[in-house]
Amino acid sequence: MTEKASGKQGGKVETAIKPTRSDDYAEWYQQVVRAADLAESSPVRGCMVIKPWGYALWERFQAELDRMFKDTGHKNAYFPLFIPKSFLEKEAEHVEGFAKECAVVTHHRLVAGPDGGLVPDPKAKLEEPLIVRPTSETIIGASFAQWVQSYRDLPLLINQWANVVRWEMRTRLFLRTAEFLWQEGHTAHATKEEAEEETRRMLEVYARFAEDFMAMPVYKGAKTPGERFPGAVDTYSIEAMMQDRKALQAGTSHFLGQNFSKASGIKFHSKEEKEEFAWTTSWGVSTRLVGALVMSHADDNGMVIPPRLAPAHVVIMPILRGDDTTEKVRAFARSLRDELKAQRFHDRPLDVELDERDIRGGDKAWEWVKKGIPLRIEVGPRDVESGSVMLARRDRGPREKTAIPKNELVATVTSILDDMQKGLFERALAFRKEHTQAIDTRAELDAFFTPKSSTTTSSGDERAEAHGGFALTHWAGDAAVEADLKDRLKVTVRNIPEDLPEALVPGTCPFTGKPSPRRVLLSKSY
Amino acid sequence: MTEKASGKQGGKVETAIKPTRSDDYAEWYQQVVRAADLAESSPVRGCMVIKPWGYALWERFQAELDRMFKDTGHKNAYFPLFIPKSFLEKEAEHVEGFAKECAVVTHHRLVAGPDGGLVPDPKAKLEEPLIVRPTSETIIGASFAQWVQSYRDLPLLINQWANVVRWEMRTRLFLRTAEFLWQEGHTAHATKEEAEEETRRMLEVYARFAEDFMAMPVYKGAKTPGERFPGAVDTYSIEAMMQDRKALQAGTSHFLGQNFSKASGIKFHSKEEKEEFAWTTSWGVSTRLVGALVMSHADDNGMVIPPRLAPAHVVIMPILRGDDTTEKVRAFARSLRDELKAQRFHDRPLDVELDERDIRGGDKAWEWVKKGIPLRIEVGPRDVESGSVMLARRDRGPREKTAIPKNELVATVTSILDDMQKGLFERALAFRKEHTQAIDTRAELDAFFTPKSSTTTSSGDERAEAHGGFALTHWAGDAAVEADLKDRLKVTVRNIPEDLPEALVPGTCPFTGKPSPRRVLLSKSY
Repeated sequence: MTEKASGKQGGKVETAIKPTRSDDYAEWYQQVVRAADLAESSPVRGCMVIKPWGYALWERFQAELDRMFKDTGHKNAYFPLFIPKSFLEKEAEHVEGFAKECAVVTHHRLVAGPDGGLVPDPKAKLEEPLIVRPTSETIIGASFAQWVQSYRDLPLLINQWANVVRWEMRTRLFLRTAEFLWQEGHTAHATKEEAEEETRRMLEVYARFAEDFMAMPVYKGAKTPGERFPGAVDTYSIEAMMQDRKALQAGTSHFLGQNFSKASGIKFHSKEEKEEFAWTTSWGVSTRLVGALVMSHADDNGMVIPPRLAPAHVVIMPILRGDDTTEKVRAFARSLRDELKAQRFHDRPLDVELDERDIRGGDKAWEWVKKGIPLRIEVGPRDVESGSVMLARRDRGPREKTAIPKNELVATVTSILDDMQKGLFERALAFRKEHTQAIDTRAELDAFFTPKSSTTTSSGDERAEAHGGFALTHWAGDAAVEADLKDRLKVTVRNIPEDLPEALVPGTCPFTGKPSPRRVLLSKSY
Repeated sequence: MTEKASGKQGGKVETAIKPTRSDDYAEWYQQVVRAADLAESSPVRGCMVIKPWGYALWERFQAELDRMFKDTGHKNAYFPLFIPKSFLEKEAEHVEGFAKECAVVTHHRLVAGPDGGLVPDPKAKLEEPLIVRPTSETIIGASFAQWVQSYRDLPLLINQWANVVRWEMRTRLFLRTAEFLWQEGHTAHATKEEAEEETRRMLEVYARFAEDFMAMPVYKGAKTPGERFPGAVDTYSIEAMMQDRKALQAGTSHFLGQNFSKASGIKFHSKEEKEEFAWTTSWGVSTRLVGALVMSHADDNGMVIPPRLAPAHVVIMPILRGDDTTEKVRAFARSLRDELKAQRFHDRPLDVELDERDIRGGDKAWEWVKKGIPLRIEVGPRDVESGSVMLARRDRGPREKTAIPKNELVATVTSILDDMQKGLFERALAFRKEHTQAIDTRAELDAFFTPKSSTTTSSGDERAEAHGGFALTHWAGDAAVEADLKDRLKVTVRNIPEDLPEALVPGTCPFTGKPSPRRVLLSKSY
C-alpha cells in the first residue's frame, strides 16, 4: 500500500532546498527559512519581518512557555520600552556589557531641515538619552524597589513578553537580529537559597520545553565566569547541538545575587525586622529558538515542525477535478476536517488546514512539505469511493504516501503525531550522541575541531567536512585556556554539564596538567 | 438570608475610593487604577508600568480580540520596531501627523563622555535616523509591496500585536501614554469595494467586542475630514460614553484608498493582466480600552470587571481560625474551587482564585472589591457545617452578602455571571440614554455643554456639575463650525452615527442654517 517514488534525477536525489545541508549549511539555513515562509529581512538594518507561518510558530512557543511559567507561579506584567541612561549605568558590568550595542533615543520630534527633509528637532533634544531596552533588569528593578517593602511581598515572580534591541552588525534571521522578541523573567526573593532554587527551576522549565516540545535534547549547566550575563553571579544555560554540530545556547537563567537589588534599592524588612537587600534572578528565551528548531529538524526539503509546536498539525488537500466528482470530494474532505478537529492532541484541539486553492496539486503539496506541517492528506475521487485517504508524514520521504481508511486515520491521528514527536527527539539525540566525544589530549582536541581537508562532491563543488561536534574535556578553570581555545579554534566552554554521568568524574586538564573536578562541554557555537 | 450593612458613618457612605466620582472624577480615575493594582507611572517620562492584574486584564482583551480577528481570516505577523525617517516621509499627511511626537533614534552606541558618564558615541551616529513606530502603515507597506504580485495574493489580511510610541507631554495611565500596547490590522485588497467592506467589517468586530465583552455600548460612524487618521480617505470610530459623560474613542478603522499603496508601491497584476495599485485598510485598538473599561463600570469602591473579561471570575476566601476547624474549612474551600473550575463560562474554564493569605478578612475582601473580581465567596466553619457559603457580587453593594448552598452555587455560577454581564451593559446603556439628547439650537447646545454653576458638597468641597453628555445635532459639514465648537466649548464631532434611527433624518444646521442630511454626535472627549 506504500508508494515510493525514487525522486532521483541522474542519480542525484532532487531536493526542494538548494543548497543542501552538506553543500552549504549556512545558505541552506537561509533558504529553509525563506522556503518555509517563516521570516525575511526588512529594509531596517538588522531587523526582521516575522511572516505569518513563522509568527504562528512563535505563538505556539509562547503559549506553551506561558503556561509553564504560570504553572510555576509567575505572573505577566509590562514595563517601559525605554531605559534612562542613568539606570543602565547603575550596575557597572551590566552597562559595560550593553552600552556598545544599543539604540539611543535622543530627540522627541522631527522638524523641517535646511534641505527640505525632516531632521531631529534641536529644540526637542532629551535632557537624558533613553536606551531602547536590551534587557530590563534595571527598569524592572526600579519597580521592584517600590513593590517590595516586607518579606510578605516576597517572592515576587514576574515575567514579561517583549521586544528588545541589541545593535548587531552581522545578523541572521532568528539567530541574531538587532530587534528580537523574547520573554524575560524577573524575580526577587528573601533568601539566597530561594533565589538559587528559582534559577534552577526555570533552567529546568527551559530544558523540559526544549526536549518535550521542541524535541531538541539539551545539556544543562553553569557558564564559566567569562561567559556570564553582565552583572550575574551565576549563569546557567541549556545548550543544543545543531545539525552542523555547533552548539546553540537555547536559554539562560541567571542568579543575580544582590548585585541588582543593591543597584536598584530592592530592600525589605525581614521577619526579624531587619532591613535586607533582596536576592534576584532573571531568565529568558527568545525568537532565536525558532532558528534552533530549524537547525535541529529541518532537512533538505525544508522545515520539519515537531507536532507539539505545529501551528497546524494536518493539511487536507482535496483533488478537485472540476467535474461531477468535485462536490463529493469536497464534502468528504470537509467532513474529514471536522472529524479531525474534534480530536485533542495534548489538551489542544487538532489544528487542521483545508487547502482548496486552485493551484497544481504538486506545487501545493511541496509548499506544505517546505513549511514542515506534520501530516499531509490527499483526497481524490477514488479515495472517496473507497472511504480512504492518502497520508504523508513529514518525517518520512517527501514522496512517500500510504493509503489509510478515513476512520482509522481519525482514530489513530494523535498516536501518529506522538510517534513523530518521539521520533524527532530520538533522531536528534542519536545525532548528538554520535558527535559527542570525551577528549583528553590537546592534539585530539585540535583535530576534533579542525574540519577535514576539502573534498570534491559528486556535483563538482568543493566543500569542507564539518568539525567533530561536542567535546567533553577536563579543564581546571583557567581563563587563559578559554582565551586560547577561542582564538585558535573558535571553541568555547559552552557550559559545565551537571546531569551527564560521564562528565562528573575528576581528571587532569590537558592544557595545564592541573587537576580538574569534572569535564566541561567544549564546542563551536552560534 | 441577606445581610446588608449600612456602611454609613455620620450620614455619609464610606467608600473605598477617595475622592468619589462626583467629588473629583479625574482623581477618582487615578485612584481606581491604583487601588485595583492595574498600572502605575514609571520613572520613564510618559511610560507606564502595567502591573500583573492590569496585564492579566489586557491578556483577556487580547485573547478575545485575537480570536475574532482569526475568525475573520486574519493572520498575525511581526514587523520592525523602527521606521526609517524616509519611510515616514513617503505619505505627506501621515508624516505631518506623526513627526511632531515621535521618539528618534540617532545613535547605536554609548561611550565614555568627557565628564565620566556615557554619551551617545559620535562615531556611531546613524546615517538616517530611525523613528520608533507610532503606527506601522509605512513599514508594513514595504513588506506588502514585496508580498503582493498578483490578484491571487489578495486579499492580504494581517494583524500585529505590538508596542508603539507617540511622544505625549500630558499623560494619564492607559488613556494617554507615550508608549502603549495595541494591535494594528493592515490589509490589502484588489478592489475599492472589498477594502471598504473590510473597513466596515472590522468596525463591526470592534463594536461587538465593546458591547459583548466590555459591556460598553458604542456608537459607530464615520469621522469628519478634520478628525481622520493622517493619510486615510475615511476613518470610522466607535465612541463610548464614560461616567463623566465625555466620549472615549474606543477603536478606529481606516479606509486608506490607494494613498499608502502608492506611497509604498503595493502593485498587483489584475485578472485582466493590468498593473494596479492595491486598496488598503488599517484598524486598531489599544490598552486605552482598559481605561475605557474603568471609566465605564468602576464605582466609588473600585474596579468592576465584566465577567467575560475578568482575569479571574471568583475568589474564595476561607476563614481559617487556626483552631480545629481550619482543616475542614480549607478542604471545603479547595473542593469548591475544583468544582467551580470544572465549570465553563463562554467556552473558557472558570478562573478561580483561592486566597488563603494570612491577613485580616476585611482587608482581604476589600482588596478584591477594589480589584473588581465579579464574585467573592467566604467560607467559614459554620458554612461548612451547613454546606453553604456566603456570596457577594461586585455589581451589588460591597457589604451585601447572601448565603447560598454550595451545590446551588456551582450549578448557577455561570448564569449569575451572565446576569452580571447583562446588567452592566444595561446600566451603561441606560446611563448613555439618559445623557444623550437631540439639540437643535445654539443656545441649548451651549447650555448643554456648560457645566452648571459650582455647588458646595456636604463635605464642604466645591465642585462643578458635569456637562450634559452627548448631543445629536444637525451639521452641514462646515469645518469653521467644528473649529468654533472646539474653541468655545471643547466639543468635537465624535462621529456621524449610522445605526441610530433618530439621527438619520434630514434637518437644518443650527450654526449655518444650511440643510443637513442627518444629525452628528457632538461631545467633549478623552
